[in-house]
Amino acid sequence: PSSEASSRGEPGTQEKLLASEDVVVTSEDGITKIVFNRPTKKNAITTQMYQEITQALKTASKDNSAMTVFTGNGDYYSSGNDLTNFTSTPSGNIEEFAKRGADILRDFVDTFIDFPKPLVAVVNGPAVGISVTTLGLFDVVYASDKATFHTPFSHLGQTPEACSSYTFPKIMGPAKANEMLIFGKKLTAGEAYAQGLVTEVFPDSTLQKEVWARLKAYAKLPPNAMRISKSLIKSSSEREKLHAVNAEECTTLQARWLSEECIGAVTSFMSRKAKL
Amino acid sequence: PSSEASSRGEPGTQEKLLASEDVVVTSEDGITKIVFNRPTKKNAITTQMYQEITQALKTASKDNSAMTVFTGNGDYYSSGNDLTNFTSTPSGNIEEFAKRGADILRDFVDTFIDFPKPLVAVVNGPAVGISVTTLGLFDVVYASDKATFHTPFSHLGQTPEACSSYTFPKIMGPAKANEMLIFGKKLTAGEAYAQGLVTEVFPDSTLQKEVWARLKAYAKLPPNAMRISKSLIKSSSEREKLHAVNAEECTTLQARWLSEECIGAVTSFMSRKAKL
Amino acid sequence: PSSEASSRGEPGTQEKLLASEDVVVTSEDGITKIVFNRPTKKNAITTQMYQEITQALKTASKDNSAMTVFTGNGDYYSSGNDLTNFTSTPSGNIEEFAKRGADILRDFVDTFIDFPKPLVAVVNGPAVGISVTTLGLFDVVYASDKATFHTPFSHLGQTPEACSSYTFPKIMGPAKANEMLIFGKKLTAGEAYAQGLVTEVFPDSTLQKEVWARLKAYAKLPPNAMRISKSLIKSSSEREKLHAVNAEECTTLQARWLSEECIGAVTSFMSRKAKL
Repeated sequence: PSSEASSRGEPGTQEKLLASEDVVVTSEDGITKIVFNRPTKKNAITTQMYQEITQALKTASKDNSAMTVFTGNGDYYSSGNDLTNFTSTPSGNIEEFAKRGADILRDFVDTFIDFPKPLVAVVNGPAVGISVTTLGLFDVVYASDKATFHTPFSHLGQTPEACSSYTFPKIMGPAKANEMLIFGKKLTAGEAYAQGLVTEVFPDSTLQKEVWARLKAYAKLPPNAMRISKSLIKSSSEREKLHAVNAEECTTLQARWLSEECIGAVTSFMSRKAKL
Repeated sequence: PSSEASSRGEPGTQEKLLASEDVVVTSEDGITKIVFNRPTKKNAITTQMYQEITQALKTASKDNSAMTVFTGNGDYYSSGNDLTNFTSTPSGNIEEFAKRGADILRDFVDTFIDFPKPLVAVVNGPAVGISVTTLGLFDVVYASDKATFHTPFSHLGQTPEACSSYTFPKIMGPAKANEMLIFGKKLTAGEAYAQGLVTEVFPDSTLQKEVWARLKAYAKLPPNAMRISKSLIKSSSEREKLHAVNAEECTTLQARWLSEECIGAVTSFMSRKAKL
Repeated sequence: PSSEASSRGEPGTQEKLLASEDVVVTSEDGITKIVFNRPTKKNAITTQMYQEITQALKTASKDNSAMTVFTGNGDYYSSGNDLTNFTSTPSGNIEEFAKRGADILRDFVDTFIDFPKPLVAVVNGPAVGISVTTLGLFDVVYASDKATFHTPFSHLGQTPEACSSYTFPKIMGPAKANEMLIFGKKLTAGEAYAQGLVTEVFPDSTLQKEVWARLKAYAKLPPNAMRISKSLIKSSSEREKLHAVNAEECTTLQARWLSEECIGAVTSFMSRKAKL
């Protein structure tokens, strides 16, 4: 029993999301599963995928599943923001482009903050950028021993998003969080576990078997107790704080995307990549 | 030099606490020691024991000891809330019963929040439920390598208490805290140490010797400096936050205890247990 | 290219800082380096050194370096507050002396809170007291495997400073933080790493080579991105909280320094030391 991600736009808006195969949503055994499915591009997230995931989460919050699980198809969990999102800018319209990007990002992250049921990540391989920072908004994070966690924001003239400027120091302590967020240090799965970002690390060969057995058992627990426990843990004052952090981070990024530092760094990165 | 727990009720109230041997309080070498002493029932906590412990803590806050230490007699630290507290409900009076239970719990937890001297747990064996969640309100937690930490709230249709919805994510990070609090995953002593819930783990065979030597030395340090350091660390704004969380958790549990999910889960658990 | 620490006093004040060799400030490769340079006294910090470091940090916040790095010369990182700061009190003037000490401490810590660029500690050996507590205000902390972390406040009748009553429980969890801050337990480098106080531990023999290679690479990253990332992580509401904690801790210490507990403990410590 599987169904494609909803392709309906927001009610009352003009935009329509085109159906794609880059985000696959299925539901089984009380678990709604959202899969990054662009393996030939290391599951890099396009603008359309941000909108599809936002919509899929909103739908999952109201379906009859007990929990929602994210994972990636192929070797990567997700390589993060697809940098062609930047280079596909309509020329002459860069301020509006930055504003639209910030709006889409803010809505995307807000939906993670407000998701009312247990939210689990199964990090099957390397994670980069926003696929790392959003982990701070998940309830439980399982990882393959092949997973890595990398946020090279400064290298691209950018700054943290998805509330990681708040959640990561809280989770890992500033000493570990800052080396990642400011200096772009990549963490191994073991380091991410030691610092509390990851719940448990599994050998890659047994990850799927062990994790899904555990999740299927959890999905049978009393659903209201789980939902209400989550609402105590992610309390209304905590969610309010997270929404404020998200707004501040998005405003900051909107300005960053127009800065010489960022434009220079992204251009240089794309040009190095094109030469390979 | 040892004395039984005070059995006097609160001034101005009608209730009287009956003296029991289930909670033993002694004072020696500047240390007041409170022992869960119901080893044939795995030190499960009855309604009367909640009230005796509350009173013992209030007395200890004003005695001339430098610190207070909790531990358990026998193999268990404590198996948590005695579920016969639920089944002994006077029939027809379930709302009042739930309200009274929430009031007793709230007072119990408030007393931990406000305890002004160093509060130490020596976790000599498995800990379950509220004997785990209260650890987030202790200053120092030593554990045997035979200790485990288990909070099966969802399994019983219930939700976290003793401020664990706030303290556990803060201490362990959400990834580790949520697997415990929402999914009921049991932690080993080593895992609890790695995530910061436990200060240090000792081999069971040397736990008592090593811990008490250390505590007796600590109890000789300048008492005002220790008390004032604690009041800076557990600041008035932090205590205010904890009291608000406690109130919210107790109100939530009061409603949970009347829910079909909880009544069904507890009934089923007791009936399975009776068949053994 | 190296320059001595600025020896100018604050504008509009009467005080003048005398130039000393106890704090050495140099700038190279985009990195301003501040060195505790009193190796024959285990880099203990005199009143004058507090003021020189405060001034050096204020200067570094506006120079053209990308980051600032603290380290110690010799075997110690720093043995903390030089206790002769206490015994050099002009007699009959102890209240004023305590007030002046609290003012200098508060200004010193405020400068760490407000430092706008990445702030890195290279802990080359044992750290004691304020050289430990300030680490909670650094962004990244590298340590030699010979480093230890020791805050014997209670032993001296004193209480935590440099916001450690707030940052240490947040970083390490209360169980680990309280054993340090209240009971004066010394941490090894490995324990400090496991609890998140330290970013990474290096063998003493390779510390300098590995750390400086890494820092020189980091210093070439886009400086605005790094500064803005830090301002998101150490947000204005977080800095406001830290300043309030610093004020409360300094007021508390000012009273402690006049207490019998503290005077007795410091006198006894100095007299034991003099007999060696």
